[in-house]
Amino acid sequence: MKKSSVVIAGGGSTFTPGIVLMLLEHQDRFPVRQIKLYDNDAERQKKIAEACRILLAERAPDIAFSYSVRPEEAFSDVDFVMAHIRVGKYAMREKDEKIPMRHGVLGQETCGPGGIAYGMRSIGGVIEILDYMEKYSPDAWMLNYSNPAAIVAEACRRLRPCSRVINICDMPVGIEERMAEIAGLKSRREMTVRYYGLNHFGWWCDIRDRDGNDLMPAIKAHVAGCGYVVDSDAGTEPDWRETFAKARDVYAVDPDTLPNTYLKYYLFPDYVFRHDSRHPEHTRASEVMEHREKEVFAAAADIVARGTAAGCGFHSDEHASYIVDLAEAIAFNRQARMLLIVENDGAISNFASDAMVEIPCLVGSAGYEKISIGRIPLFQKGLMEQQVAVEKLVVDAWINGSYQALWQAITLSRTVPSASVAKAILDDLIEANRGYWPELK
Amino acid sequence: MKKSSVVIAGGGSTFTPGIVLMLLEHQDRFPVRQIKLYDNDAERQKKIAEACRILLAERAPDIAFSYSVRPEEAFSDVDFVMAHIRVGKYAMREKDEKIPMRHGVLGQETCGPGGIAYGMRSIGGVIEILDYMEKYSPDAWMLNYSNPAAIVAEACRRLRPCSRVINICDMPVGIEERMAEIAGLKSRREMTVRYYGLNHFGWWCDIRDRDGNDLMPAIKAHVAGCGYVVDSDAGTEPDWRETFAKARDVYAVDPDTLPNTYLKYYLFPDYVFRHDSRHPEHTRASEVMEHREKEVFAAAADIVARGTAAGCGFHSDEHASYIVDLAEAIAFNRQARMLLIVENDGAISNFASDAMVEIPCLVGSAGYEKISIGRIPLFQKGLMEQQVAVEKLVVDAWINGSYQALWQAITLSRTVPSASVAKAILDDLIEANRGYWPELK
Repeated sequence: MKKSSVVIAGGGSTFTPGIVLMLLEHQDRFPVRQIKLYDNDAERQKKIAEACRILLAERAPDIAFSYSVRPEEAFSDVDFVMAHIRVGKYAMREKDEKIPMRHGVLGQETCGPGGIAYGMRSIGGVIEILDYMEKYSPDAWMLNYSNPAAIVAEACRRLRPCSRVINICDMPVGIEERMAEIAGLKSRREMTVRYYGLNHFGWWCDIRDRDGNDLMPAIKAHVAGCGYVVDSDAGTEPDWRETFAKARDVYAVDPDTLPNTYLKYYLFPDYVFRHDSRHPEHTRASEVMEHREKEVFAAAADIVARGTAAGCGFHSDEHASYIVDLAEAIAFNRQARMLLIVENDGAISNFASDAMVEIPCLVGSAGYEKISIGRIPLFQKGLMEQQVAVEKLVVDAWINGSYQALWQAITLSRTVPSASVAKAILDDLIEANRGYWPELK
Repeated sequence: MKKSSVVIAGGGSTFTPGIVLMLLEHQDRFPVRQIKLYDNDAERQKKIAEACRILLAERAPDIAFSYSVRPEEAFSDVDFVMAHIRVGKYAMREKDEKIPMRHGVLGQETCGPGGIAYGMRSIGGVIEILDYMEKYSPDAWMLNYSNPAAIVAEACRRLRPCSRVINICDMPVGIEERMAEIAGLKSRREMTVRYYGLNHFGWWCDIRDRDGNDLMPAIKAHVAGCGYVVDSDAGTEPDWRETFAKARDVYAVDPDTLPNTYLKYYLFPDYVFRHDSRHPEHTRASEVMEHREKEVFAAAADIVARGTAAGCGFHSDEHASYIVDLAEAIAFNRQARMLLIVENDGAISNFASDAMVEIPCLVGSAGYEKISIGRIPLFQKGLMEQQVAVEKLVVDAWINGSYQALWQAITLSRTVPSASVAKAILDDLIEANRGYWPELK
């Protein structure tokens, strides 16, 4: 079996150890001969990487391991770039969340003005990594799950239209795991779905089991009662549980489809704001910095101090196995059916041809083929056309350094009540993002 | 010169006397042999009509005059139906304005939930008149300026796709009169404009004088300073003056174009709400009922009591002369360039083909030809796609009696913050509109 070489871009991420462990668990279907880490923050990456070095030497001594902040070293001799970068890290995410809230608007990582600010930071970083890959390993594939995926994917389409980059998101996967549980299946892999939308902005319109039986009625009945909350949710964090429960209300607005949970930010922004603004100075990013960040770096330091990963605090991120699904499908031409973020080009027949949409694709060694969706309903089209204009205006603003385009983008967002509020938020975001955004004129 | 027969549908409207007088003033270019009034409210129409009968007998004895509530009588032997109906009259308009405000949302005649409620009342009435015309005068043209024009026009497209109805709006005309004054021209008729959008939702992208000189820079400079407020505004009502002034802020969001004033409701709904909610129980409709309604009916009663229209309180509505422009263009094949609300069908190349858009057309005896607009910018496309989905969902709701579609329509409106607020408004509107709306399931 062919063995692949992988570089994880964003090597210093707290998610990196979980992905490394997950890769080890799937060696039977996606064997790797080399794992590299790349980050532009040498100090942060070193902490994670030295722990990973010890872990890999113990558990998979035949897999070569290295890490670097030098692009040539990191991106040479690789087959796959797995990219999960976060430009500005959690400190900037915290600002993305807090600044809109000061203006009465929800603050969120990928939705609304926070997501727009994050997009303006991410575009340059993702394009940089893509360029490194194409320079040092031109036959490799970049599997990009860096957020905000919608804006990043549009930027790739505009700026690097011929690049070997595949944009993918984990949220549909997470929801499909719940759907499978609701339908009494062992795994989401037993379901075949039809889904359409933008990233973090889509709907399932057909879900079947392996025999072709329609699972929508049973799943709808469950969602109408308690959203995507499932029996195995006992240990789920309260914030996530709330998001899965709120899907009930999102579903009620269009009971012909099943919604992505992120639609709550667009259909119930008042509710989200009321909920989140109880603690306007302590957001999701604050929580991550206080808990996850500390725990993962403490686990890494512990491995290095003890010189062994035996009984360590790193845990495999099985949820991220969709990245292995994608890499495996390419490496071994599996023709796997997966939701990807791709240029529409008629797949949704009554939607902008040049929009990046999230739809099912068949993935093999030649890349992907899109499953045609046909016409979508008016309600979804109206919402999506507005949102895709937001995403495109952000990329316009980044490319042209245009204040006007970014003001228009924030104004257009469903989460923002008016052009005047949009301008006030924008002016604060510019101040907070100095050094991260291109200069706007 | 050929003389036309005209029926004014909405004969009991307070605007009818002004239109009758305006018709008399334009006999040199659009001579009429007969004026009829039609209304379904016999008592109200009689008050206006008996005064018009006296006025016409004195000032234009060669023009036949009659009025009726019987469709066969009113719609037989006519060349043009001039339709300005208001189903539910001002009492219902007042509810359209007040109900959304109780939920923190702006209440307006044609925009947002108020416009949607009005649309649900109007569709049946407009289609009824169209059917009367086609039954009793199948070669006539219906010139429809009944509001909300966007929803009414979409309903005509869906329900009577082959009908001889032309939908037109007076707001661009009113703004162009101001633009002409700003540019130092005697009349808007000296300008040639390019404009695109939906009704009450559009932008000018090119304005030239008869020699082809670009007037946009001078008009933009004026609008950037004081909106569409002009020297002749000394006597303009404060509310309208405020609307014209606010165009300055609307323009700032996209300085490549010049905006329709109605865009303030969509781009600055928070501002409008703050302004209007100072008097939530005394709206624009309340004002009209207290002033205009009383004045016009008092003037009509005075004419009837005195038996003469000499020195009467009726005034010609010169502003409405665009209706004569339209009728004249058809009657005499003038190939006049006018903004009409028509099926897009590729005229805006990157916009839904089946949308009703407001664009320049050439009008002659065969109807109209559309001027192709080509691609529109992202910001406008995003706004328009969202809004056109609202309008189409309203028509869906009316045709199918669908609560769900109407909830989605109100949710999609930029003026409404969330699906939960949309539902609360909808439930109140249903209660208020019993007998006017189809029953929703």
